[in-house]
Parts: sequence; structure tokens; C-alpha cells
Amino acid sequence: MHAANRLHNVSEYYFSEKLREIQTLKSQGKPIINLGIGNPDLPPPAQAVQAIQNAVNELNKHGYQPYKGLPELRNAIAQFYQKHYQVSLNSESEILPLFGAKEGIMHLSMAYLNKDDQVLVPNPGYASYSSITNLVEAEIVTYDLDENNGWQPDFDALEQLDLTKVKIMWVNYPNMPTGGKSTTELFEKLIAFGIKHQVLIVNDNPYSFILTEKPLSILSVKGAKKTAVELNSLSKTFNMAGWRVGMLTGNKDVIENALKVKSNMDSGMFYGLQIGAIAALNSENGWFESINSHYIKRREIVWKMADQLGLKYDKSAEGFFVWCKITNGKTSHEMSDYLLYEHDVFVTPGSIFGSKGDNYIRFSLCVDEKQLEEVLNRLN
Amino acid sequence: MHAANRLHNVSEYYFSEKLREIQTLKSQGKPIINLGIGNPDLPPPAQAVQAIQNAVNELNKHGYQPYKGLPELRNAIAQFYQKHYQVSLNSESEILPLFGAKEGIMHLSMAYLNKDDQVLVPNPGYASYSSITNLVEAEIVTYDLDENNGWQPDFDALEQLDLTKVKIMWVNYPNMPTGGKSTTELFEKLIAFGIKHQVLIVNDNPYSFILTEKPLSILSVKGAKKTAVELNSLSKTFNMAGWRVGMLTGNKDVIENALKVKSNMDSGMFYGLQIGAIAALNSENGWFESINSHYIKRREIVWKMADQLGLKYDKSAEGFFVWCKITNGKTSHEMSDYLLYEHDVFVTPGSIFGSKGDNYIRFSLCVDEKQLEEVLNRLN
Repeated sequence: MHAANRLHNVSEYYFSEKLREIQTLKSQGKPIINLGIGNPDLPPPAQAVQAIQNAVNELNKHGYQPYKGLPELRNAIAQFYQKHYQVSLNSESEILPLFGAKEGIMHLSMAYLNKDDQVLVPNPGYASYSSITNLVEAEIVTYDLDENNGWQPDFDALEQLDLTKVKIMWVNYPNMPTGGKSTTELFEKLIAFGIKHQVLIVNDNPYSFILTEKPLSILSVKGAKKTAVELNSLSKTFNMAGWRVGMLTGNKDVIENALKVKSNMDSGMFYGLQIGAIAALNSENGWFESINSHYIKRREIVWKMADQLGLKYDKSAEGFFVWCKITNGKTSHEMSDYLLYEHDVFVTPGSIFGSKGDNYIRFSLCVDEKQLEEVLNRLN
Repeated sequence: MHAANRLHNVSEYYFSEKLREIQTLKSQGKPIINLGIGNPDLPPPAQAVQAIQNAVNELNKHGYQPYKGLPELRNAIAQFYQKHYQVSLNSESEILPLFGAKEGIMHLSMAYLNKDDQVLVPNPGYASYSSITNLVEAEIVTYDLDENNGWQPDFDALEQLDLTKVKIMWVNYPNMPTGGKSTTELFEKLIAFGIKHQVLIVNDNPYSFILTEKPLSILSVKGAKKTAVELNSLSKTFNMAGWRVGMLTGNKDVIENALKVKSNMDSGMFYGLQIGAIAALNSENGWFESINSHYIKRREIVWKMADQLGLKYDKSAEGFFVWCKITNGKTSHEMSDYLLYEHDVFVTPGSIFGSKGDNYIRFSLCVDEKQLEEVLNRLN
């Protein structure tokens, strides 16, 4: 049986290959410390754990759940958006709970992209925007992010492009991997661009509570719902990456079309996960201060590592990665290999996020202070 | 923004529309009893509930999980297949845990179907085979199931077709909606057909423990792994439809290609659900006897309803639906509407499963005896 053409451009995820190598090195006795992956190590809110435990005791709640999620979950998301982003959402028509933001990239791509359509994908950027575009056989048009521009899109350059076939623009602020900041001004430019060119702007927004001054949503911009939706997730905000609870919010026609795809691909989210997610979404503000206090301390240590290695970084970057420029002429893969083989530390090479990441490496803050201090000692 | 062409043929799932009408009728005070949907009402195994409660207390297990599922879950699936189906599977290469069997229909369709490829879909049959084929813009070729043939495919008719463009044949035994039986002889014919014509045979097998003489897997046939995979699920077997735990088993190349799609669409299954699923899969044989004892008693009452309505049915049918032939000249929609509006009972019209279901209605056994007795009283 021959696989479909759409699989030809899809390769194994970089991390799954690299993690196998790390596993092999560990089994050979190497004390590898992994600063590669953004998988929160801190525990989820206690009330979320308690809520799922209580929920599974309701023995009549183990059957199929609604495709659109429980109304109670959609209401909790609406309240969350109102409280933290000052964005009003209709919980019936402007919110769709997802199994994770990545799933939403698939739903939107299936719902909007024909074979010859084009998609604007950031370079550097999260690999799934490209791999899912390949899966639906649409065409990737990359747009560059540059540190001299605060990792924002270059709108003058974008306006030079022939945009007639562009259907979706993926944006992601606070930005991963660069830590580029989300600002109201940037979101206003993006919304104006989307309206002018009839392009669906999708802001992938999982990092808005991590080391930011203030959480921002693209939907807070006036007129945003005309042309934009936002992907969001409990993964990073509540240390619940394994729960697979995310959401799509914004333009109601887009939500409706995403639901058409979704309802043909899955059969709703486990009741207990939804009840636990509601409990997490209702967390008090102290929660965010608490997790950020860890990330602040960890970041201090990573900055010292970077100093030791002669790397350059931006102290005002957002999110839980430290994105560092290599200044000794090494490529990102060479630098990553050097750290792995000489110091038993895995750090992500920037080039896996695109050619514009080639002079950078990315440190994750999802590792405790003790291990980070150990890495620092190895480098000294 | 215009939706992609693939959405043009995708409509709202019949049940979501109908359930809204039922909700409206209920809110008007109508005492509707819903015998429409196959959503198990009995509780899941107690040890599965206990296992997920224990698992979520492991506070370092709330992060991303492997795309392929935990090795422990794949081992439990392998043991389950060995114990109940006498099928040996390699847990590394021949098993892929899924969020549900429906998700697997999507993965396989994405992995194998180009735009002009054809797919054999049963009539009557589960609506998702067609709707997902539409989503990937491949071509549906229906094959008829007929009661005079025990609801098996007519292999003589299949051989008459031009099969050169056919990539996948969806089969589903024990059959839904008809209750047609799974037999080794049938599976042998299907495997021979798949090998001869180089067609991927996918048996969707969620009902093998419900009112069957003996659970059967298509993979128990010699040579099956050359041309076949099986979708299976904990939904009906363990009353865990809401958990969204299913599996794909069989041909390793197919598993590998399905994983390529899956790893680009999701980020692994919640640890607690996997641990709960393992506990369920390890259930003793008494579990199956226990749930079937309920279905046997319920079926007796539904048979009495059918007798009262002058419907014909097969007492040896498998699965938890009773598929009844209408003998008074009414169409399936007319019969369903008659029961809904005259007796406040919702029963699924057979035509939603395809034109060959037009003279049939389907009763679900996922309703307790007390409500079934109430329905019987209304009909007397």
C-alpha cells in the first residue's frame, strides 16, 4: 500500500529522534540534563487534580461528551478571557474547546486550505505550522522574524508579496522560540493587515501568562473578531500539558467551520478533564505569580550559563524559553552538539525552527534550579 | 473567508441536530425516552476509576506523553489481544493507541488517500467512513450489505468492480447498525480479497464483546497482517466511551504511517487515562459476562416492543443495537417520527446509515430496563 502524497513531506518530529539519542546516551551512563523541551515540570493547580478525582466518581459521566464541550467549560473560558484579557466572548458561538492548540492548527488548516492555497508561516517558528500545511498539501510562504525588529513581522515586506492566494497567517505572540513580546500595537497591525487582505489571522497564544508584564489576547483589539481567531491552551498556563485541553476563540464563522472538521474527527472531551480544566481556569491571580516566581529564579541561572558561553540574549523576552544568539561562529547544531557531547546538556538548536534560527540556541526553563545550577557548574 | 472545498460535502452530524429537537421537546414537558444513541450507560470497571484517581496524584505525570502511548499501555493491549482474540502483536510496531476509533478513520484516510483514490464503504454503515472520505476529498464507492446474505459483503459483486483505484475497504464486524456477525470465514474472505487486490482492509471492531458468542479479531486470520489493520476501542467493551481510548493494530507499515499523521495532529494521551485504560484492559472475564447479562435482559424487552410494532429482527444479531425491519410500508424516517411524536420515544431511522437502511429502524440497548419497560407500556 502506497502512502498518500501528503505524507511525502512529513518527517519524524525532530524531538522524537533526538530524545532517542539522549536515551541511548543516558543508558551509557551519561548524566544528560535536558534543557530542550517546553514541558512544564511544576505541578498543576491542586484544585484541578481534586476536581478530576471527584468527577470520575460520577459514574454516569463516563459516556460521550458534547463535540462543543460542556457549556460549563465554555462559560469558564469566557470568564477567563474576560478576567485576564478583558475580552468578551459569546460562549455559544465564539469558543470551541480543543484537545490542545496543535489540534486546532489541524482543524483550521482542514477547514480553510485548498491544495493551491498559501499560508504565511513565521521563520523562525513552531514546526507544526509547516508540517500541518504540508499534510493538507497547501503552500507554505515563510515570513521572516528578525531580532532587530523585536521578532515582529516586517509589514512592509509582507505588503510586497502577492497575497491573493494567502488564506491563513500564523502568528504567535508571545513568540516561540524567540520570546518576542505581544503588544497591543503589534496586534492592531496584524488585524488591519488581515482585514485589508482578507487573511485569517490566527494567534497561537499559549505563553501569555509566562514572564509577561500582562497577558494579552489578539482579540482585545477592536475589530479583531472580523478576521482573527486565537488558539490558547492550559498546557503552559496551568502546567497541564498532558491533559490536552486547549481552545479556539474568536470569529464565529471560523469556529463553526472548525467544529465541522472536529466533529468528524473526534467524539468530545472526557468529562473529568473538562471539570478539572474548569477548576484550573478559575485559579486566583496568586497562581500566576507563584509559577512565575520559579521561572524568574530559573531564568537568572540560565542567563549566567549564557554569559559563560558568550551568548547574547534579551532580558525582556517573554515565555519560558531563553533564546540566545551564538557569537563564536558556530551553527546552532554545532553549538547544540558541543553542549551535548562535551557537557552532557541538551539545548535545542535554533535551526529546527527555520533558517532564521540558525545562529541561535534555545534553553527551556522547565527544569528545576538544582539541575540548572549543576549545568552552570559544568560550564564554569 | 471561504471554507475549503472539502467542507462542502460535510454536514452536521445527524444526531447533534436531532438531539436539539429532542431537547426542545423535553423542555416542552414531553417525557422523551431516547433509544437512539449507542452511549453505554453502565459504569466502567471500578479498578479503572480507581487507577485514574491514583494516577493524577502523581504530580510529575501531568506533562506531555509519548505520541505512541506508554509502553505499558501498548503491552496491556498486546496482552488483551492475546488473551481474548488469540492474536500475537508486537507492542513496539503493531499497536498504536488512539483517542478513539473514529480518530483512526481520520489518520488512515489522511495517510493513504489521495484526491482521486477510491474507498469501499458499506451501505448501510457508520456515517464517519463517508464523511471522513469526503473530508480528504477521496471518492466513496459503496458496497451493499443485505440481510439475505447475513449482512456480509457480496464478494461476487465486489469482484465485478474496477478496483484499480480502491485503496481502503472499511468493514465493521460485528456490524453496526445491522448486528451482522463476525465469523472467521468472513474474515478469511476479506483478507484474501485485500491481498488479491492490494486493498487495505480496515475492520472497525468495537462490538466484539457485546452479545457475541466469542470475541473475534480479523487479525486472527492467517496472513491478515499483510493487508489489514483493526480499529478497536474501550468505549463499548468497558463502558468508557467518554474516555476516548482506542487503538489501531495490525500491519506495521500502516501503523507507522498513521503515526506520522497522528504525531502532527496531537501531543499524546493524558497519563491518567492511559493508566485507567490499562486497568480496564486487565479486567477478568467476569466483566464481560456481567455487562452482557444486562444487555440480554434489555434485549428481551426491545424484542417485545418490536413484536408489538410488527417489526422483524434477527435474534442472533451481535452488538448492543436491535436492527428491525419495518413491514407496514412506512419509511424509516416515518417510523422514527411516528414513535417520537406519538409515543415520545426516539429510535434511529435506518436511512441515516445509507439507502439500504431505508426499511429499518435501530433500537439501542444503552437504556435501563425500567425505561425500556415504560416504552413497552406506551406501545401496548
